[in-house]
Amino acid sequence: MAGVLSTAIAQGQSHGVARYVRFRRGSVVSYGLLEGDRVRALSGELFSLLGQTDNTYRLDQVQLLCPCEPPKIMAVGLNYKSHLGDRPAPKNPEIFYKPVSALQDPGRPIVIPKDARNVHYEGELVIVIGRRARNVTPQQAREVIFGVTCGNDVSERDWQNGPDKDMQWWRAKGADTFAPLGPAIVRGIDYGNLMLQTRVNGKVVQKQRTSDLIFDCPTIVSFLSRYITLVPGDVIYTGTPGATSALKPGDVVEVEIEHVGVLRNPVVAG
Amino acid sequence: MAGVLSTAIAQGQSHGVARYVRFRRGSVVSYGLLEGDRVRALSGELFSLLGQTDNTYRLDQVQLLCPCEPPKIMAVGLNYKSHLGDRPAPKNPEIFYKPVSALQDPGRPIVIPKDARNVHYEGELVIVIGRRARNVTPQQAREVIFGVTCGNDVSERDWQNGPDKDMQWWRAKGADTFAPLGPAIVRGIDYGNLMLQTRVNGKVVQKQRTSDLIFDCPTIVSFLSRYITLVPGDVIYTGTPGATSALKPGDVVEVEIEHVGVLRNPVVAG
Repeated sequence: MAGVLSTAIAQGQSHGVARYVRFRRGSVVSYGLLEGDRVRALSGELFSLLGQTDNTYRLDQVQLLCPCEPPKIMAVGLNYKSHLGDRPAPKNPEIFYKPVSALQDPGRPIVIPKDARNVHYEGELVIVIGRRARNVTPQQAREVIFGVTCGNDVSERDWQNGPDKDMQWWRAKGADTFAPLGPAIVRGIDYGNLMLQTRVNGKVVQKQRTSDLIFDCPTIVSFLSRYITLVPGDVIYTGTPGATSALKPGDVVEVEIEHVGVLRNPVVAG
Repeated sequence: MAGVLSTAIAQGQSHGVARYVRFRRGSVVSYGLLEGDRVRALSGELFSLLGQTDNTYRLDQVQLLCPCEPPKIMAVGLNYKSHLGDRPAPKNPEIFYKPVSALQDPGRPIVIPKDARNVHYEGELVIVIGRRARNVTPQQAREVIFGVTCGNDVSERDWQNGPDKDMQWWRAKGADTFAPLGPAIVRGIDYGNLMLQTRVNGKVVQKQRTSDLIFDCPTIVSFLSRYITLVPGDVIYTGTPGATSALKPGDVVEVEIEHVGVLRNPVVAG
């Protein structure tokens, strides 16, 4: 696998950086490499054998999808000091799950559920797992992380902690379309110090560097792997900085991470 | 699909009841129909097209696996009055997720994590979804439920609500092996009034009828489908009755549901 990926990286991008996408063209879904404003189709599966093809398409000829199909989605709460408010910093990463049914493709809408009143954006760096992992050290975790992408951990605050609080965050964090992801998984960059910003209708509403994470990516992966087996394609939303606010139908949310990309989703009423 | 399934039911079992299992024989994994102490291999996938084959095996010739491969696992908390204690009955089903990495096959061990001190059994009736569902009524939900099986919603109480309480129940309910499931998905029985009992080392520790559920199966499915899309193979643990207690290495836990089967797992140290 290493050989094929190295070839893909060398040919696909300068500086050893590769941007992997998944896309639909007509009825066919493929993985691809971003090359400027074009995408080169790859043959095979993202975490096993990948070969390059001679087929490239302009980005406006394809529909970009979530860049992988995660077997499971994990997320970290309270992972930026700026998001803690008066709450103490957690001793360990505070983990929760989002269901895979919540995934949403880049460009497609975040749907506000009919009885939801307080749906917030949360711009986040997302880790993509490349290898099976159980009980790995933070150092080993670096080898387990395939790359990173952008995510929006959409959250209904009234169901999470407000007047209609559920015992657990299943719908607050897990309603359909509450997990936008993508567009590209970027491999070969230092994800420990990237500027993350979220914009609503073009206005910057969150802005912080990933170096401010309380638990960094290898620490999160190592801690998770003490209890649950991670497998290729699993994704981990790493937490959101600062304050958030409510979205309304007609809004457009963008999560931009330096060197990673921009995840843009419109908001509609359910 | 209906035609094939009807044939399978008619030929497989008396009284229109069918017991579906998944099993490994050598390196081959197949679905099968339980026929007494034998299993008849089926061709195809459980929720699409299934055909019967002429191949039958004695149960001691195969290894039974989790009876399906769920895309996601949901569970209901506080769903028997006998389990509520002093807590008020919830207004809606209280849902949480278990990760698919927590699944464990019938007969294989529940592994107590190294730093866990208070791991409890929770014997439960588990719903298996057979059709894609969004926003279905309780009446429609009956058509969405493919069948039921046995589950053990293994729970670490110190991480759930005790001295080491996490913000969410991710490891309390989600550590590897904390979701034993099976052995058979039973289709064609009235799952609304079945005796459920859990035994530890042969001693009955939980015993109650599923007619005592606060939210019955169709109500749970209907409520979930208002927020998240259910797909074939999804499973829902419906809650546990009465009191529970801690397991220790060497114990054997059995969850028996009348007309459904017995899910038996030994307990080992991690």
